[in-house]
Parts: sequence; C-alpha cells; structure tokens
Amino acid sequence: MVHESSSAEMHPSRWGDPAQAAPLADSARGLVEMVFGLDERPALTEVVVPPSRLEPAILAALEELLGREHVLTDDGTRRLRTRGKSTPDLLRQRAGDLADAPDVVVRPSSHDEVAAVLTYAVAHHLAVVPFGGGTSVTGGLVARREGYEGVVSLDLVRMKRLLAVDRVSMTATLEPGLRGPEAEALLAAEGMTLGHFPQSFEHATIGGFAATRSSGQSSAGYGRFDALVVGLRAATPRGELVLGSAPASAAGPDLRQLLLGSEGAFGVITAVTVRVRPVPVEKVYEGWRWPTFDAGRDAMRTLAQAGLLPTVLRLSDEAETSLNLARPDAIGDASDGGCLMITGYEGEPDAVAAKRTAVTAVLTGLGGVPQGEEPGRSWAHGRFHAPYLRDSLLDVGVLVETLETATFWSNAPRLYADVKSALETALGSPTLVLCHVSHVYETGCSLYFTIAAKQSDDPVAQWLAAKAAASDAIVAAGATITHHHAVGTDHRPWLAAEIGDLGVGVLRAVKAELDPTGILNPGILVAP
Amino acid sequence: MVHESSSAEMHPSRWGDPAQAAPLADSARGLVEMVFGLDERPALTEVVVPPSRLEPAILAALEELLGREHVLTDDGTRRLRTRGKSTPDLLRQRAGDLADAPDVVVRPSSHDEVAAVLTYAVAHHLAVVPFGGGTSVTGGLVARREGYEGVVSLDLVRMKRLLAVDRVSMTATLEPGLRGPEAEALLAAEGMTLGHFPQSFEHATIGGFAATRSSGQSSAGYGRFDALVVGLRAATPRGELVLGSAPASAAGPDLRQLLLGSEGAFGVITAVTVRVRPVPVEKVYEGWRWPTFDAGRDAMRTLAQAGLLPTVLRLSDEAETSLNLARPDAIGDASDGGCLMITGYEGEPDAVAAKRTAVTAVLTGLGGVPQGEEPGRSWAHGRFHAPYLRDSLLDVGVLVETLETATFWSNAPRLYADVKSALETALGSPTLVLCHVSHVYETGCSLYFTIAAKQSDDPVAQWLAAKAAASDAIVAAGATITHHHAVGTDHRPWLAAEIGDLGVGVLRAVKAELDPTGILNPGILVAP
Repeated sequence: MVHESSSAEMHPSRWGDPAQAAPLADSARGLVEMVFGLDERPALTEVVVPPSRLEPAILAALEELLGREHVLTDDGTRRLRTRGKSTPDLLRQRAGDLADAPDVVVRPSSHDEVAAVLTYAVAHHLAVVPFGGGTSVTGGLVARREGYEGVVSLDLVRMKRLLAVDRVSMTATLEPGLRGPEAEALLAAEGMTLGHFPQSFEHATIGGFAATRSSGQSSAGYGRFDALVVGLRAATPRGELVLGSAPASAAGPDLRQLLLGSEGAFGVITAVTVRVRPVPVEKVYEGWRWPTFDAGRDAMRTLAQAGLLPTVLRLSDEAETSLNLARPDAIGDASDGGCLMITGYEGEPDAVAAKRTAVTAVLTGLGGVPQGEEPGRSWAHGRFHAPYLRDSLLDVGVLVETLETATFWSNAPRLYADVKSALETALGSPTLVLCHVSHVYETGCSLYFTIAAKQSDDPVAQWLAAKAAASDAIVAAGATITHHHAVGTDHRPWLAAEIGDLGVGVLRAVKAELDPTGILNPGILVAP
Repeated sequence: MVHESSSAEMHPSRWGDPAQAAPLADSARGLVEMVFGLDERPALTEVVVPPSRLEPAILAALEELLGREHVLTDDGTRRLRTRGKSTPDLLRQRAGDLADAPDVVVRPSSHDEVAAVLTYAVAHHLAVVPFGGGTSVTGGLVARREGYEGVVSLDLVRMKRLLAVDRVSMTATLEPGLRGPEAEALLAAEGMTLGHFPQSFEHATIGGFAATRSSGQSSAGYGRFDALVVGLRAATPRGELVLGSAPASAAGPDLRQLLLGSEGAFGVITAVTVRVRPVPVEKVYEGWRWPTFDAGRDAMRTLAQAGLLPTVLRLSDEAETSLNLARPDAIGDASDGGCLMITGYEGEPDAVAAKRTAVTAVLTGLGGVPQGEEPGRSWAHGRFHAPYLRDSLLDVGVLVETLETATFWSNAPRLYADVKSALETALGSPTLVLCHVSHVYETGCSLYFTIAAKQSDDPVAQWLAAKAAASDAIVAAGATITHHHAVGTDHRPWLAAEIGDLGVGVLRAVKAELDPTGILNPGILVAP
C-alpha cells in the first residue's frame, strides 16, 4: 500500500510542506517573549491512532470495488485524514487526540467509482467523508461516527484530470482532486488560468473550493470560486446530478448554487466546469498607505462602486499593518503608522496600465499615499505563508487563529468593532486582534480577523469560547457567519441565526432527498 | 369595489396600454398581405367569465382578513388575472376561453397580510397564484384547479413601497408589487437606478422579476435581475424566509438562488433588496453593422471576454435586421444587408467616453462598421414596443411569438441553426424566423427568436407544436430551456431534460418542505 502523493501531503499536526516551515526569527521570538512569554509546547511525536473498526468483509468488498491498493487502513494514512487544519484541529493532533480518525481511506479514480462507493456505503450504513486537500478550518471533516458501521474517508487524490477545455467559451472542466497548483499547471499548458488563489492554494483542491465556496486573494479581479463555476457533476446516493446548461438560466432556481457550499453533505462533486482566463502577461502589485482603516475601506468601496477594481485589493487595519504575520522577519519592524493597502493588477499590459492609471487617480484623489511596489512584492511573496508561522507560534505557547465574516458596507464599522471587542474580551490580555479586508463587492466586503494570545492550559477550550463570542457578535450584527470557509461543524450552531430555522429545514429537506440514509458527511452543514 | 390601479392594467387579450396600440402602417400591412395574406381575426368582445365557485363563507373570511374592498370577484377583475401574455394566452382570451379565471382576487398590503392569506389558504386548501404584472409568457399564472377548493389570485398591487435605501452600500429594499417604472421613479428620487429594463418593463413587477429570473436589455452593464438581488423576504406556508446577510457568503448553499426562479411555488416574495447604481448622467446608443451573425457574435464574445462590455449589447441576425418588428414603419424598408448591433453606454460622462473609446477600437478592429447614433435612438425608442405590434398582427391572422434560450459560446452556432430549423419545419412556409443576441457573458450568450407565420385554424395548437419542436432542439443541443422567462407550465415538460429527474426531485423536496399541502401555484415549476 503506497501513497501516490505522499510527498505533497501535509504533516498531520502542522500546515503544509515541512520544507517551508517558518521558525521564528530572533527578532520575532524576542517580541513574542516580551508580549506573551515563551512557553515551549512541542507536539507529541508518539501518538496512537485508534484501530480501524471495520469488518474484514467490508474492507474486502471495498477492495473488490476499487482495487486493494486503493483501500488503506494503515495508521499514517488514517492520521493524515483526521480532521482539518483549524488551530483546534492542530492542537488536538499535537496532543495526540486522534479520536476522529477514519476507519479506512478509499481512493476512487472516477465518477463511477465514487458512485459505487456511495452505493456500497448506503447498503452498509458507512459514513462517507469526501477528502480533498484536508484544509478545512471549520470542522468540515469531522463527521459524526455514532450510529454508523464505520467512517470512510473518500480521498479524491486520484481524480486529477483536466477533462475538457473549451477555448471558444473559455471554460475548463476539472476533476475535484486537483490541488490549486496542479490545476493551474494543467491550465497554464493551455495558456489559461483559473485565478483562484486562497491562502490554502498550495494544498486545497478544486472539489473543496466548490464544496466550501472558497474565495481567493485575487477575487476582486477573478471572482469568488462560486462565481467561476458554470457547471458541476456530483455523485449522490440517489444518482448523479449534472448541472450547468448555460452561463445563466431561468429554468427554475439555480441548483448549481445549491451544490456550491454543500460541503459533501449532498453529494460528492466529481467534476467542475469553470470559467478561465488567459494567463496574465503582466502582474504588478503595489502598496498604498491610508491614515485609518475607515479611510482605506471607503476607498475600496469607491473603487468597487465605480466598477474599477484591481485584480487584488486588500487592506490591513492598523494592528495588522504594524504586525505583519505573513512576514516573520518583519515582526517588530518600526511602523510608520496607518493602514497598508495592496493593489494588484494582472492581465495584458495595456489593460493593466489602463486599470492602474484609473485606480491610481481615484486612490490619490481620496488621500491614499503610494508606497511603490516593494510592499506589493513582499505581500505576493508571503501570501501563502501565514499558516506556517502559526505552527511556530503554537510551538512556543502562543495561540494563533483566524476567523472571517462579511457584511454590507454600511454595517462594516459596527461589525469590525463588535467582533474585535468580543475577541479581546473573551481572550483577555495580552491578545492581539488583527484584521484585513480582502474581498470586496459593490455592496459590501469581508472582514478577516487574526488573533494571537497566550495559550491557556486548555487552548482548545480557550479558542472555542472566543470563537463563540465572535460568532455571537457576527450574527447579532446581521452579518454572515462565514464569507469563504463554509459551515462545517464549527459554524453550525449559528447557521439558523443567519438563514432561519426554515432555511435550515430547506437544507435538511434537500439532504433527505439526495442522501436519504444520511451517509454523506453526517453532522456537517446540517445536524443529522 | 374599485381598481386601485385600473389605469395601469393591461387589456385582457392584448398587451399593454391601449393608448400605445400599434396599428399596422400601410407599408407593413402591404408586406404582411404579400407574405401571409390578410385574414382579419378580431377578438371576441363579449366573453363569459366562469362564475366564482368559492363558498360565501370563504369570501367572508378573506374579507375579514383584508377588508371587503380588497377581495374582488367581479368578472372584469378576474378576467384580467386570467393567465399571462404569451401568444397562446392572448389567443385563448381572444377566443373567449376564460376557463382558467381565478375565483377571487385578493390584495394584501403587507408581508403579514400575505402570510395570513397563506395560512387561511392552507386551512381551506385554496390554490394561491401570486400576481404581479401578469406578463408571464410561460404559463406561470395557470395554476392547477383540480383538487382545490378554489383558486385565489394574490395580487401584489398594494405592495409598492420603497422600504429602505442604503446609500453607503448602494442597496434598496423594494416591495414586490412595484412595476418597473414605479420602482425606477422611487429610486430616481434618491438619485438611484436599478437598471433593469426587460421588454415587459412597463408592466412587470419587482416580485415577478425575482420569481422568474428576469434579464433586462441593459444586462451587459447592470446584470441580470438575479445578479442584482442581495436579499429577499418571502412568506411561505411554513413561515417566513429572510435571506441575505452579506453580498456573498459561504454559510452553506446560497438559498437566495433557490428563491430566485421559484415562480411563486415556494413562497410569495414580499421584499427584495437590490444593488442599485447612481442614475446615469449620460446615455448613448449607437449602431454597428456586421457582415454576418457569426462575425457579430464573435465580436460580442471578444468584448465579454476582455471585460469590455457596454451597458447594452445586442445583435440581430440577418433576418431580424431586415425586418425590424419593433418598428412597424420600417417593415419593408430596403436593407443594406448584414447584421445590426446596438451598443449602449450609460454612466458618468468620463466613464462613458472611456468605455466607448475602448469598445469602438475593438469593434473597428474586428471589422464592424459604425452606423452612428440613429439606429441606437431608434432601438431605444421602440424597445418596449414589439408586443403591441404582435396584437396588430394577430388581428390580421399572423401568428407572432417569441422564445429564447442560452448556451456557451462554442455551442451557439449549432443551437441557432437547430432551433431555427425546428421552427421553420414545424410552422411550414411562409414562416419568418428572426433571432437576436441580447444577453452576453464571458462564457456564453442568449438567443432570442421571434417567429411570424400564417395562423392555422387552430393557432394555439399550431404554436404549441412549434414550441415543442424548438424545445426538443434546445435540450438536444444541451442548452437551457429558458434564459430569462422561467419554467411556468409551458417549459415544465423539458425541465427534467435540463436538470435531471434528480434535480426535479430536489425542487419537489424544497416545495414539500415550504409548502407541504401544495397550495402555492400548483403545477407551476414542478408537477403537483
């Protein structure tokens, strides 16, 4: 039994590629010691994975369906499919808690094999957890075990083909197991890009982007992932769904939008047709400084409402500007105050120049101070890096975690103040709360918070209490509990506050129609 | 019992405002006589409306809920709420067939009154048909009667308020009964526009736009109606749904997209929050000529994929270019061949100038020949006029009807050829089939067909056969059965071909959750 892609797999209790680990620089270590104190908390290296509890007959049947080499029960494979990459997930792994390990990892290679696994799982009442990059930060992989004969991690690692390219319509059909860089490489060979670069880009997959309504750092220019999707195929226990007969339709409700964000609870997405763009010839990122977070956010709104969005548009608040967690070497740098905005332009040189000129005129007119390309380069260099730093901070007893929300522009000041206050109150002093805006629309924007606090004796409980306080503040402000990370299990207690009990009932009714015995990701999105 | 808005109501068997009727000009009449022959077919003026079959106790209870003056059973009011405005609808009215007349028309004034009517209707098993502008062309108002104690037309004519304006977020919350011009007038007083101008604009309503996924003639610049909606409130038999906590969210599937296009079958939309824009300072429309439909469509695609869309972008095929049905005075004009494109620009003068310059450069480079502003002015003048001409042609025995679809760019040539051929074959000679593209996306476009043929002895059956042939061709080509007119009853037989039996099952499951006794628009969207 071999791992086809073990080199690309993450460490079970840390983020990403070990070669990219980010030990704290001395200056940062000094600052951390000053603020929080150093409290070395190494992860346990010897951990026990609970034994697989599947009947041998079930394993044999799965092997019959997929081939022996694609039905894995070894501890290492199962440990790597245990939960996702939220800070509580990492803390539990570091403490040796693997209670949520799946009983088996299966690797189908096609839609038909996925469908066959689902049919078998229905017949034998096995919980099925679709697994792409394993980067969920909302408990999207922690399926309920009680009442099931076993938990099957359905790893999509063998479904990595570019199924079709339509150069006229500028669409491409991708299999769900493709990680971000793999999808981009296949598309680049066709002169195309998807333009979807979330922080999890290096590890997360096409299927996961669709199932969780991901949004990337270039969303201002390329759009959220759900806006890129024009077609979907999914395997469900009741058969297949094939959706997307036109870019837009009035043939009833848009069922694509019902599968997007369905988190594996309605079906397993087996192909995604996305809008693509030509590979950009030019990329320029630059910095702007604003006197206040409000001033910078108002400038973003002006751009969005004028239809003048760059490809990347991002604004850090005062705290995040002074403590750039994406750049460990910069922690503790003297800040010249204010708030840093990153603007990025990608495309044909003429189009880049025209957009840059127009945006520059607007930002200058509103009082933005250009900072040149260095801050832009620095941001682009470190854009996928923050999760590595989190591991280094967890090692020294600092709790680091993020959460995000979105609202309409007029509500953004209240939402920002309320969530920040809720986090500071819940975590106590010393706590750093940083925030940035990285996704904008004509009518509103996202707010992405990062916290750093001294770990208590029970850092999981410490964070869950803070997360609950922040979530309460979010729904009290009428904002969304998540802009781009899905519901999972972590956000489920607040979902009814957002869409109503009746809205939850609709989701439950759809699940009952597509997955009548409830084998798909039980407990994710809706309660079983 | 008075009609609050009788002056704005349409004639039951004709389109629109009688003052805007469009008798055939002599030149057009001559051409029609030459091609089809003249065959005067006046509408019956004396028709019998089936008596209301509601029990007096039910009427009394409804009067108790809403007030006596808002529960109407007179023949005129019920006749005006009978079916919609498709050509078969008009032909049936003209022939005196009012079998689908509702038993009563009720006019609630608020969400709570709508909810109260639904509660009563559930208790007494009355079918409820939400009624806005009455402009459905897909049988969206022809609810099933069998098995119900009566049919209630729920007229939203009293729900015409602008409930909220958010100048920072640039959103407005509108009640569903506002007709297009009424909504624009309320918004104009705030310096805002919705920018939604479908051909039915003068009569159709905000609630109807949302329930049917309408798309307007300025969709290239302002977006389809479903793209304008950021929030919705609906009354259902199971309670209210309030959706839209942010411009975009990952808190599960987007349930707004489940209510959009739900055609009154899931709930009654009682408020819609839409993205708005500043009233444009400048509007310019102009014409371009292309040697072929393919060349013009390729130019549209180039613009869409370059992110360079004007506010209006429309292209007529050779046949429609030579026979502009929106301009009866122009029928029979000598044509200088090719295909006419209309480009329109709306906004701030600087933005209009910049976009116009960029689009002009692209179109000129692709071989388009500018025609100046006269064709643009002519189009803008006649843009809501075609349905009036239909009445005049029906009067002289010419069958006129439209249908539309959408697909991805690479499939557009096949779809165009197949639908045109299906219509020509089904209707026989002499038949004119005209087509235009009026909605474009990066990945595809709509195709809107207009036919004119000599009426047979049974013109309803004649059209239904042609419509069936065209619909078969559409689904065989993998396109959508409707881009912006909803499913109603007319498209229902083809819905499963588009979204699968399982997709239809999902819609049925959602309906069962929200409307367990099936009182809402029975037979519309999904079979009862």
